Amino acid sequence: MATLSDIGVSATINILTAFAFFLAFAILRIQPVNDRVYFPKWYLKGLRNSPLRSGAFVSKFVNLDFRSYARFLNWMPAALQMPEPELIDHAGLDSAVYLRIYLIGIKIFVPIACLAFAIMVPVNWTNETLERTNLTFSNVDKLSISNIPTGSHRFWTHLVMAYAFTFWTCYVLKREYEIVAAMRLHFLASEHRRPDQFTVLVRNVPPDPDESIGELVEHFFLVNHPDHYLTHQAVYNANKLSELVTKKKKLQNWLDFYQLKYTRNPSKKPLLKTGFLGLWGDKVDAIDFYTSKIDKLTKEMSLERDRIMSKGNSVMPAAFVSFKTRWAAAVCAQTQQCRNPTLWLTEWAPEPRDIFWNNLAIPYVSLAVRRLVIGVAYFFLTFFFMIPIAFVQSLANIEGIEKAVPFLKPIIEVIPKTIGVSIPMKATFFITYIMVDGWAGVAGEILRLKPLIIYHLKCFFLVKTEKDKEEAMDPGTLGFNTGEPQIQLYFLLGLVYAVVTPFLLPFIIVFFALAFVVYRHQIINVYNQGYESAAAFWPDVHGRIITALIVSQLLLMGLLSTKEAAQSTPLLVTLPVLTIWFHRFCKGRYEPAFIRYPLQEAMMKDTLERAREPNLNLKSFLQNAYIHPVFKGVDETETEPASQESEQQPVLIPTKRRSRSNTPLPSKHSGSASP
Amino acid sequence: MATLSDIGVSATINILTAFAFFLAFAILRIQPVNDRVYFPKWYLKGLRNSPLRSGAFVSKFVNLDFRSYARFLNWMPAALQMPEPELIDHAGLDSAVYLRIYLIGIKIFVPIACLAFAIMVPVNWTNETLERTNLTFSNVDKLSISNIPTGSHRFWTHLVMAYAFTFWTCYVLKREYEIVAAMRLHFLASEHRRPDQFTVLVRNVPPDPDESIGELVEHFFLVNHPDHYLTHQAVYNANKLSELVTKKKKLQNWLDFYQLKYTRNPSKKPLLKTGFLGLWGDKVDAIDFYTSKIDKLTKEMSLERDRIMSKGNSVMPAAFVSFKTRWAAAVCAQTQQCRNPTLWLTEWAPEPRDIFWNNLAIPYVSLAVRRLVIGVAYFFLTFFFMIPIAFVQSLANIEGIEKAVPFLKPIIEVIPKTIGVSIPMKATFFITYIMVDGWAGVAGEILRLKPLIIYHLKCFFLVKTEKDKEEAMDPGTLGFNTGEPQIQLYFLLGLVYAVVTPFLLPFIIVFFALAFVVYRHQIINVYNQGYESAAAFWPDVHGRIITALIVSQLLLMGLLSTKEAAQSTPLLVTLPVLTIWFHRFCKGRYEPAFIRYPLQEAMMKDTLERAREPNLNLKSFLQNAYIHPVFKGVDETETEPASQESEQQPVLIPTKRRSRSNTPLPSKHSGSASP
Repeated sequence: MATLSDIGVSATINILTAFAFFLAFAILRIQPVNDRVYFPKWYLKGLRNSPLRSGAFVSKFVNLDFRSYARFLNWMPAALQMPEPELIDHAGLDSAVYLRIYLIGIKIFVPIACLAFAIMVPVNWTNETLERTNLTFSNVDKLSISNIPTGSHRFWTHLVMAYAFTFWTCYVLKREYEIVAAMRLHFLASEHRRPDQFTVLVRNVPPDPDESIGELVEHFFLVNHPDHYLTHQAVYNANKLSELVTKKKKLQNWLDFYQLKYTRNPSKKPLLKTGFLGLWGDKVDAIDFYTSKIDKLTKEMSLERDRIMSKGNSVMPAAFVSFKTRWAAAVCAQTQQCRNPTLWLTEWAPEPRDIFWNNLAIPYVSLAVRRLVIGVAYFFLTFFFMIPIAFVQSLANIEGIEKAVPFLKPIIEVIPKTIGVSIPMKATFFITYIMVDGWAGVAGEILRLKPLIIYHLKCFFLVKTEKDKEEAMDPGTLGFNTGEPQIQLYFLLGLVYAVVTPFLLPFIIVFFALAFVVYRHQIINVYNQGYESAAAFWPDVHGRIITALIVSQLLLMGLLSTKEAAQSTPLLVTLPVLTIWFHRFCKGRYEPAFIRYPLQEAMMKDTLERAREPNLNLKSFLQNAYIHPVFKGVDETETEPASQESEQQPVLIPTKRRSRSNTPLPSKHSGSASP
Repeated sequence: MATLSDIGVSATINILTAFAFFLAFAILRIQPVNDRVYFPKWYLKGLRNSPLRSGAFVSKFVNLDFRSYARFLNWMPAALQMPEPELIDHAGLDSAVYLRIYLIGIKIFVPIACLAFAIMVPVNWTNETLERTNLTFSNVDKLSISNIPTGSHRFWTHLVMAYAFTFWTCYVLKREYEIVAAMRLHFLASEHRRPDQFTVLVRNVPPDPDESIGELVEHFFLVNHPDHYLTHQAVYNANKLSELVTKKKKLQNWLDFYQLKYTRNPSKKPLLKTGFLGLWGDKVDAIDFYTSKIDKLTKEMSLERDRIMSKGNSVMPAAFVSFKTRWAAAVCAQTQQCRNPTLWLTEWAPEPRDIFWNNLAIPYVSLAVRRLVIGVAYFFLTFFFMIPIAFVQSLANIEGIEKAVPFLKPIIEVIPKTIGVSIPMKATFFITYIMVDGWAGVAGEILRLKPLIIYHLKCFFLVKTEKDKEEAMDPGTLGFNTGEPQIQLYFLLGLVYAVVTPFLLPFIIVFFALAFVVYRHQIINVYNQGYESAAAFWPDVHGRIITALIVSQLLLMGLLSTKEAAQSTPLLVTLPVLTIWFHRFCKGRYEPAFIRYPLQEAMMKDTLERAREPNLNLKSFLQNAYIHPVFKGVDETETEPASQESEQQPVLIPTKRRSRSNTPLPSKHSGSASP
């Protein structure tokens, strides 16, 4: 598995797979029955309704306009059309900045690949080291650093190239950091009034024998921020209530279903068996049965709510403290409150949708211990990573495919096999990996096979009402947690092999370009934005690319030392030092934009707001912004006696709903090329 | 140079040297003529005056009380008597905490040495590996890890010991961090009102075409801290004025000398030749000559001062901004002011004595580049450290001494020489190094040979007036910059060899104990405190010991892997991970006490002060605290017309003087055992 033709076969298989995925997507996408799977974002924004149009019954499910099948790849230019500012409006800054990571990949690796193929490949190729050895080798080896004789002066080329690549990468990184920081600051500055601008999350409130948490918080901030404190919202441990709400929602759904059934056929009262799965037992009136059950649950919930509100032990040692001005919130979030730095920890409140409520009360020591456990686990995972790698490798190479899919054997074995390859040819493994995971995998992403199947299964078995149908539609969110590490792996591979085996670079460039188009399409048409952090993740992205760069430099150092090019060591050692310095420089120059909120900006917004709305009642705006979602959930149903309590209970602001419909006009570049 | 008897000879030589130093010190110290060399701290505090007593003329210079010679080592218990709180009062928190570093050394290494000698030395000794090889070896080798056969199960002992040593070191470090943080917070809380509590240093004020720096600073803080801004002090580039002040001081000194001469002998006017070195030229009246010269210089200074004050280009883009409350200063110092994190940088103002005035205007990029240059230089210095090490080694071993001091040869060569030592016996080198640098070197420190000689030379040649004599007395300051790295080297050596060659540990313990006593004596009797940072250096000390610990763990890992004890690698790798986690934990838990100022503390002090002194005029207190010292220097002479300007010019607060006399009462435990 080490020759060019091996790689050619692998590439053919993967390109065909990717192509098959795209074809399947192109066909499935334009069927009206799949509309909610491939365009959920537009449904959520209220810009699209099902069924798509009137007409023959069959055309509600199958697209009969055959011309649209011909244009099966035209979603690609469509995905690229929407300009970035509109994309930010449409899907948030997080998504737009996430796409920039793929762009960085292209920006870094295209010039590097050009330079490498222009200079390094000729330098590697014009040696005869491998031909002189008795090792079996392939053309790919001849393109790599393995072909340079030990101790040759040609290694200076690689050294100079390592410097050039490092400088180029750092230049791109710096420029991007600058752009993203400016985008973030612009985004924050142009935001409307939001509760989190005025609010600070306080954790580790110390217990006090005389005062409740709420009193303590109020007193502390009245004393230490006397002119600025406005109000606070306690954090409740409402896990049990949360369960009850879920339960009630399910029952309510069944009630809706039977009521719908009854309205459609008023002559027949829907009946129900009370036994296991409704298979036996007494027959009862289904509507009465569920109404009484819901009534009972509502009372239980009301009791539980009273218990939570009255007893102090449901209040967790954390609070959302709101201030009269953004300036005061910025001050409180950036300063240390108390002598003991593990108490009264303050930080910017995330926006309400972006909160894990149950995690708010984890004490400092427990957090530190958890971090330790994760650190040790991470270490051992990395240390024993060879096991999964070996497993993946056994699957991903040509022989693995032959074993797994025996009918491909004749195609693959057209090929004279090179046996006994003794030079470590990991590059070919990674090339195969890139093609499987990066090409076919990304193409598979656009097909959305799992959501497609689940949606149709749900529609067939479970969907009882229109509301159910809406819920069966699962747009999903952008997978930062899985997507970002994947990109990082490609950065690492690209930077490591740029000097060693530049032949790998084009494969990575294809990945970045393909992924950019695919994810841009998905962000425009599919994913629903879970929350908006205003690109707060960028310092991590930057830091990881820097880490990849340093790893690549250390590996090159190791490689050249085995090649007896030891005189280059001091120059090579300088590279990571320079890179670390560059990282520190960027950290000082750009990172504050992502973790702090400058007082000048806060003061400017405050002053403008005071001039525009002098009579603004900020307290009522903030009072209930950070209420536990479970208290909202209760009142959202609105048909229950519980809603009577909502006068003492906070006025509810259904933030999630609001955000789903805050772009009233359709985009000119809708990005959806649907017929 | 590898046997026990070699080390014995070396130890004897160094102990004798140290003893000689102590003896010389004991004799020199009690001579009244050296009083200002060995007790300058007490002169500075105004608790001691020369000549010590009346009596015979000779007893002004030589101590004739022979009983005092007998008690020649009693300065040691005296140095240990002063309790720590009083030491803090006497010499500041910095000095007291600096001494704790030596104490940490003792606390870490005494239990480690006990454990190592009880368990590891027997385990090492009871092997016969070295006897089986054809290598020449000594008893020191038999005590070390070299004596364990390759692949032996006895390495588990070393592994367990490595864990025990790491845990013990971390435990001591955590406890000390806790204690020092508490000491610092207590010290800060009990401090009197000081200008730096209200003041923030602002750097990188951006240039503005319409406003001067002063106006810009005032406007910015009036806008962004509207209720809190009080006043600010611009920073001037006054290097030329500084030169003139120095020049004038010298002339003033000569004038004083001739005036003294004239008062002693009024019949004869002192004359002076104006040529080179006063050797030829016209004879003039010396007093008139210097008076006219000083007058001229004073006018020049006044012009220069006007130039600095009037022209904008002498104002540097930095300022000391003072606030109405400590709370507001704490807020400003901890927050980001402006969108661009490299402009309007705010930090706590250091106390006025602790400022390098010329460095205040270095721009952000220049600072980053300087850091880079230092980083690269540091790296190469470490990389090429072998050259100076080789040089030191060639001097410091026994053969080197033989060559340098040939007459010692017969004593040293009593000794059968072991030739052909092939096991790397660096431990013996470092043992010798510790004895030379750590034992004899520290003992030499107490003798103060250089200040002693310079003082007497100055007294003989230069001292003209009593003021000169005071200036000839050079107490020096505690050398953090040289002392701290020395200690760190010993921590590194101790931790590295604790598992490998525990035989080295007692030598290190002796160093720490000796240095603790010597430096405690010096701090009490000699050093003058340059400034007070309230132990702000502790996080660095902590971090460096942690680094030493990690280096020791990595070296052990390398050593054991050459000994084919590879099965222990995962357990050994866990150690640095745990240590780094511990460091991060400490950083989060204790470091904020050293870099931030909690708002609660600030608010408490503000509230107390407002209650106690409701009519305090803070503005006048702060207005001139941060004036460039050169403006103070001008007015200090007080006899010049320049002092007329001091009504528009700031009222001068001679901070340096004040701090020298802020402990009015003598200590009960004076620490000085002088007769």
